[in-house]
Amino acid sequence: MKKVAILGSTGSIGQKTLKVIEDFPSEFEVIGLSCETNIGLLEEQIRRFAPRIVACVDEAKARELHGKVSDTDVKVVSGTDGLVEVAEFKEAECVVLAIAGSCGLIPTLAAIDAGKQIALANKEPLVMAGRIITERARQMGLKILPIDSEHSAIFQCLNGRPVSDVKRLILTGSGGPLNYLSLEELSSISPVKALEHPRWKMGQKISIDSATLMNKGLEVIEARWLFDIEIGKIEVLIHPEAIIHSMVEFIDGSLLAQLGITDMRLPIQYALTYPKRLPSPLPSIDFNQEKVLTFASPDLNRFPSLGLAYEAAKIGHTMPAVLNAANEEAVWAYLAGQIRIVDIPRIVEDVMAHHSLRYEPSLDQILATDRWAREEVKKVWSLKS
Amino acid sequence: MKKVAILGSTGSIGQKTLKVIEDFPSEFEVIGLSCETNIGLLEEQIRRFAPRIVACVDEAKARELHGKVSDTDVKVVSGTDGLVEVAEFKEAECVVLAIAGSCGLIPTLAAIDAGKQIALANKEPLVMAGRIITERARQMGLKILPIDSEHSAIFQCLNGRPVSDVKRLILTGSGGPLNYLSLEELSSISPVKALEHPRWKMGQKISIDSATLMNKGLEVIEARWLFDIEIGKIEVLIHPEAIIHSMVEFIDGSLLAQLGITDMRLPIQYALTYPKRLPSPLPSIDFNQEKVLTFASPDLNRFPSLGLAYEAAKIGHTMPAVLNAANEEAVWAYLAGQIRIVDIPRIVEDVMAHHSLRYEPSLDQILATDRWAREEVKKVWSLKS
Repeated sequence: MKKVAILGSTGSIGQKTLKVIEDFPSEFEVIGLSCETNIGLLEEQIRRFAPRIVACVDEAKARELHGKVSDTDVKVVSGTDGLVEVAEFKEAECVVLAIAGSCGLIPTLAAIDAGKQIALANKEPLVMAGRIITERARQMGLKILPIDSEHSAIFQCLNGRPVSDVKRLILTGSGGPLNYLSLEELSSISPVKALEHPRWKMGQKISIDSATLMNKGLEVIEARWLFDIEIGKIEVLIHPEAIIHSMVEFIDGSLLAQLGITDMRLPIQYALTYPKRLPSPLPSIDFNQEKVLTFASPDLNRFPSLGLAYEAAKIGHTMPAVLNAANEEAVWAYLAGQIRIVDIPRIVEDVMAHHSLRYEPSLDQILATDRWAREEVKKVWSLKS
Repeated sequence: MKKVAILGSTGSIGQKTLKVIEDFPSEFEVIGLSCETNIGLLEEQIRRFAPRIVACVDEAKARELHGKVSDTDVKVVSGTDGLVEVAEFKEAECVVLAIAGSCGLIPTLAAIDAGKQIALANKEPLVMAGRIITERARQMGLKILPIDSEHSAIFQCLNGRPVSDVKRLILTGSGGPLNYLSLEELSSISPVKALEHPRWKMGQKISIDSATLMNKGLEVIEARWLFDIEIGKIEVLIHPEAIIHSMVEFIDGSLLAQLGITDMRLPIQYALTYPKRLPSPLPSIDFNQEKVLTFASPDLNRFPSLGLAYEAAKIGHTMPAVLNAANEEAVWAYLAGQIRIVDIPRIVEDVMAHHSLRYEPSLDQILATDRWAREEVKKVWSLKS
């Protein structure tokens, strides 16, 4: 029985992780769970999986939850400190980081410092503090197991082969729901439309990032750190069918690709069972249905966020944290109806342009940069609007 | 310096192997070479690569060659005994088996018994005597490194993973030059047309086998032995672009595929450098050119040879040797203009129907079966014509 804690268990990845665990009752035991505010679902999960500890980030909601589950043995904690307590919880062997956005950073580091096996779905921490996270994991002798389908694909293609054998990583992306729209059509697209991803069902933040291709940009930076490979060797390829989840080209010209149906339960299961594989209840790819796979280059003109991510990655230091924070704030502003989708990369670009780089930043400097960038989004936007 | 002997060095794979060796002069040394009759090219290869020993299967040609290269130090040997002498030659560490057809069987076993690293392009020996070859290799602690692009692909996808993790192997095939012809059009196709493979430049025997899909059938049987996997788990998928060279699906539904340009130098290089990879001088796949990959099921109605190969594999014992020998004779008859291409599977089917199976055959019984099947082709055909 592998003992698992899931941070962000009420989110899209968290719920799917629990589905995988339900498929293998003799393999996994749920030790800890967490939510931001959705205590209704968290209570259901507590009653179904009987964890030892749960965290709710929102303090008031945590108190409410405490009252609701007082008939159980579960310990209820709150705030970022609560997330850290779950991440470090002694009995947990594996911590699934399924929080959306930058608030996963502190718990991720806590789980690493506590020597937990890390299954990482939350890409923003690596974007912000990739060097710090990967160095600490290396010091602790931990492998970070990726859950993102692209990084799981690359991890499976590499299968322990040395990075010196790699010519390039090719991150594939479906192109998102807005792939076929003109710049003009893009400018008036509503959040409801932008959230309609053709291939993957995901949370709101990542769905908008997929629509702008910022998600692919964040994945490029994530791959840079997860696989310790220079940015210039990471390419993005649009592949609307989303069957090939990514590829690795080796120095001899041979490529390996990982393929699968578009269900996040597959990469989640692999991260949980690694290095073993277990039979999945999901169907195989049927090549009588998936008869055609197509590829195209990403259009940086219509989707400038991807170019900004490459730029931030090449600059390095605190710039990826600026990119990430500015983007996150802009996405929430878009979802709240305050800006247009095409304003997101404009805001990110403006904030990046105003940033004074901190070299080889400490964690505190990264967090300060994150706060600065979020404030700056509001300034930049109030200046424009 | 890895010391390499190449059996069949004047054939298509043999010549390409020497090209790879020329690309890496500090990595490889040529110890032995062989040809069937093409002593003109073999003499050139002797002067270029200065091997210690060469074999020419044809005795008269061997004597002629001996006279031509008497100014060099090379030892010239002849016949199947000569091939065996090269295969066992003390200095050779790695033996590349690039002979076409069943005459590779005896030298393959000789190389294994002499403890050489085996790089196998010659699939017929495995089809005839897969159990004997793989058991002897296992006893000697040798890995058989595949050169066939499909098997090299599977070997790279597996990368040491246990066969118990495998749900199915998917061997891809371009469909060959006759993929789009009707049964009626097929019946009048000339050898010249059938030899025009759209994607791969190969020898005559394998080109015709590609046109009838018998090559894919032989590959299914080859895969069964190379990867020790039951026939029911091996599928064939038509993929005209020939970019994906084969795939492995694991029990959790994840697939790995190997991709590359259609140049046999890539799998040859990997077999020679394994487990290392070296930078290839060949171009990478350009997905701006290869924008569309397509898949289809093979049509067993138009290409019954593939179904016959599955049938022979399921029956096992001496039946795959019958399939192989009958096919080989029928292919030469077709190339000589004596039969139509659609007669090839009819002949194979007839000879298989007449065969009295020998269970768990010895090598001698397999060789006797091979001779019987070749005689039977002539009988069957003279009865029909």
